[in-house]
Amino acid sequence: MEEKILGNIITKIREKQPIVFHITNMVTINDCANITLALGASPLMSFCEEELEDILSFSSALVLNIGTMDKSMKTMVVKAGKIANKLGKPVILDPVGAGASKARMELVGKLIENVDFAVIKGNMAEIKSIAGIKNKNNRGVDSVEALENADEIALDLAKKLNTVIALTGKQDIVTDGKRISKINNGTAILGKVTGTGCMTASLIGSACGAQQDNFLAATVGVSIMGISGEIAESRLSKGQGNASLRVGIIDSVYNMTSENFNSNIKVELN
Amino acid sequence: MEEKILGNIITKIREKQPIVFHITNMVTINDCANITLALGASPLMSFCEEELEDILSFSSALVLNIGTMDKSMKTMVVKAGKIANKLGKPVILDPVGAGASKARMELVGKLIENVDFAVIKGNMAEIKSIAGIKNKNNRGVDSVEALENADEIALDLAKKLNTVIALTGKQDIVTDGKRISKINNGTAILGKVTGTGCMTASLIGSACGAQQDNFLAATVGVSIMGISGEIAESRLSKGQGNASLRVGIIDSVYNMTSENFNSNIKVELN
Amino acid sequence: MEEKILGNIITKIREKQPIVFHITNMVTINDCANITLALGASPLMSFCEEELEDILSFSSALVLNIGTMDKSMKTMVVKAGKIANKLGKPVILDPVGAGASKARMELVGKLIENVDFAVIKGNMAEIKSIAGIKNKNNRGVDSVEALENADEIALDLAKKLNTVIALTGKQDIVTDGKRISKINNGTAILGKVTGTGCMTASLIGSACGAQQDNFLAATVGVSIMGISGEIAESRLSKGQGNASLRVGIIDSVYNMTSENFNSNIKVELN
Repeated sequence: MEEKILGNIITKIREKQPIVFHITNMVTINDCANITLALGASPLMSFCEEELEDILSFSSALVLNIGTMDKSMKTMVVKAGKIANKLGKPVILDPVGAGASKARMELVGKLIENVDFAVIKGNMAEIKSIAGIKNKNNRGVDSVEALENADEIALDLAKKLNTVIALTGKQDIVTDGKRISKINNGTAILGKVTGTGCMTASLIGSACGAQQDNFLAATVGVSIMGISGEIAESRLSKGQGNASLRVGIIDSVYNMTSENFNSNIKVELN
Repeated sequence: MEEKILGNIITKIREKQPIVFHITNMVTINDCANITLALGASPLMSFCEEELEDILSFSSALVLNIGTMDKSMKTMVVKAGKIANKLGKPVILDPVGAGASKARMELVGKLIENVDFAVIKGNMAEIKSIAGIKNKNNRGVDSVEALENADEIALDLAKKLNTVIALTGKQDIVTDGKRISKINNGTAILGKVTGTGCMTASLIGSACGAQQDNFLAATVGVSIMGISGEIAESRLSKGQGNASLRVGIIDSVYNMTSENFNSNIKVELN
Repeated sequence: MEEKILGNIITKIREKQPIVFHITNMVTINDCANITLALGASPLMSFCEEELEDILSFSSALVLNIGTMDKSMKTMVVKAGKIANKLGKPVILDPVGAGASKARMELVGKLIENVDFAVIKGNMAEIKSIAGIKNKNNRGVDSVEALENADEIALDLAKKLNTVIALTGKQDIVTDGKRISKINNGTAILGKVTGTGCMTASLIGSACGAQQDNFLAATVGVSIMGISGEIAESRLSKGQGNASLRVGIIDSVYNMTSENFNSNIKVELN
């Protein structure tokens, strides 16, 4: 039943073809564009502060990814977030590497202070940094930590910031502070492809741009990445590796229907 | 007969290996480099204003793509275009998203005022914006509109700006104001891969860099993309999608010969 | 015997998973990240000057690639190199296009003056530029020249700069001024994929980050690219080209073990 509601969001994206405006990092920008197209949405990337208002006026969602932040991005993302808020467009934050440097923490702090986010998506290190919990083993963008108390951390932060938290890991947790979904899709090899996290934010942005429920949107976005990773891994032939998987993930999103989403998702919704 | 002249340009590119200098966008920069190599030309990308003169002196063509324009690019592309004009190197403009924002229209206006272009390549929304015709349904970079009067719009603009206009769409139109070619290659799935337009500009730049006739160069460049898209689509297996198509397009250009170009092109040349 | 020592470095990288900090170019940044992951190391890319100290403190190596240098990169790479030196982290320089413009030569000069490099990797045009030898046929980043005296040029420069020189070409030469390795792996089609040079620097950085001997690290890094190119080429099917090869190279690194490295490497170590 709930799976069916989730799967229907894929149909809505393919029908509405929402424009998803990205201010994102240089490493994975092409993958974010192609996975957005694969899901039936329309990506738009810009680094031009003067056109924020023009472009946001016809966009359906805004994805902010600070992975390769620099001086000009620091002011631009805050400004873009404020304009999107004013225009009522959902804003998704991917706080890549939050906690890896003081500069990143400062930017994330400034963003949270100035912008209302529809969804904040991060791994445990990033979400803990935002929650103000000290990390012992911070290894930058690829941080993997024991997920003790993952759901509590996510729930508390969602309530505190009045947003949806999507906490990715072996088990993904999505919560708006009331509802919570635990997603058991995905595979370890996803960690060997750069940008699977960034692409997940693009999927969430596409779903937020096609309908109103950001909690369901984040659940769908995170699940599509997990399912696509599983399908892509199962299709790898001998001698293939992470580069073929990268192609396979986007191909799997391209071929994803409500039906095969519904039959593959492993989610507990509460 | 005419097809044979077009196909021969591919042979010329592979013999001359022209250096194609790109000032281009961050989303598709890698694809532009690899498709230029696939066609036998040599790509060079730079964002350094101080080296424009040095690099243009040994380049055979300049491709300007404003897709991810920012402050420094705005002055750099104008300067680069002027130097290329002075050195007699053909300049190709890809006015990505022209009409999507005032900032883009201003930059395109400044470019056209200051630089003589060998070829301007765009979709209907972009070409109409340049022609000063108001767009009703502007959806940014992926605009698709009814192609009523497409050839008239292209012909008029080519005459007005004394350049070659390459107007891409379901049917591609290339004209220098006197000659006109209508190309019926291509496939809808090309719209699901980011950067096929940008890559087309790289193909045109490679052809302009290998011989003198910019009208034929643009016709060849646009046709190669259409034919490669058809070949790549025909080679997709079950479960593959836009990411595999992206790889297949560049692979098809890599394997393109004058002979299979001539036997696949569907063009009316007048 | 020596091959076995080299192959063991791959095992060490996969065990230690060193974080390799890249300040690199926009064209090939995604490939550099994915090939670093393929070899078992962990890539981190940043363009934020304020976080250099924070990020270098937990990184194991720094790769500097000036391919798409701009104003802000010019000061950032020098600063990053100095901090890495202070922290005792190995710094790898990929002087892309050195000699193609005065601006690049100036930056390379400034880098060499201010930073102690563990390894400098380049093609003959780049290495000759650094050595102050005038190039007759400089064609920018893709320069290929007769390799007369290649080993002398590399040896002299390694001694003069007290570094490891990795000179790539038909035969690759790696030397620390005392030891020299000549590597006969690789295939011509590698020149048709953008970024194989940049990816080689990432492989070297990964190896430098996992053990102490920079000469062996550079020999391993250069050899992995050659071997992976051979494997990827042998796996190409009819109709595939440089885009599939790009995927195949990274896949081959992903599947590379000490054993198949040792059985494929063609090296003379002296």
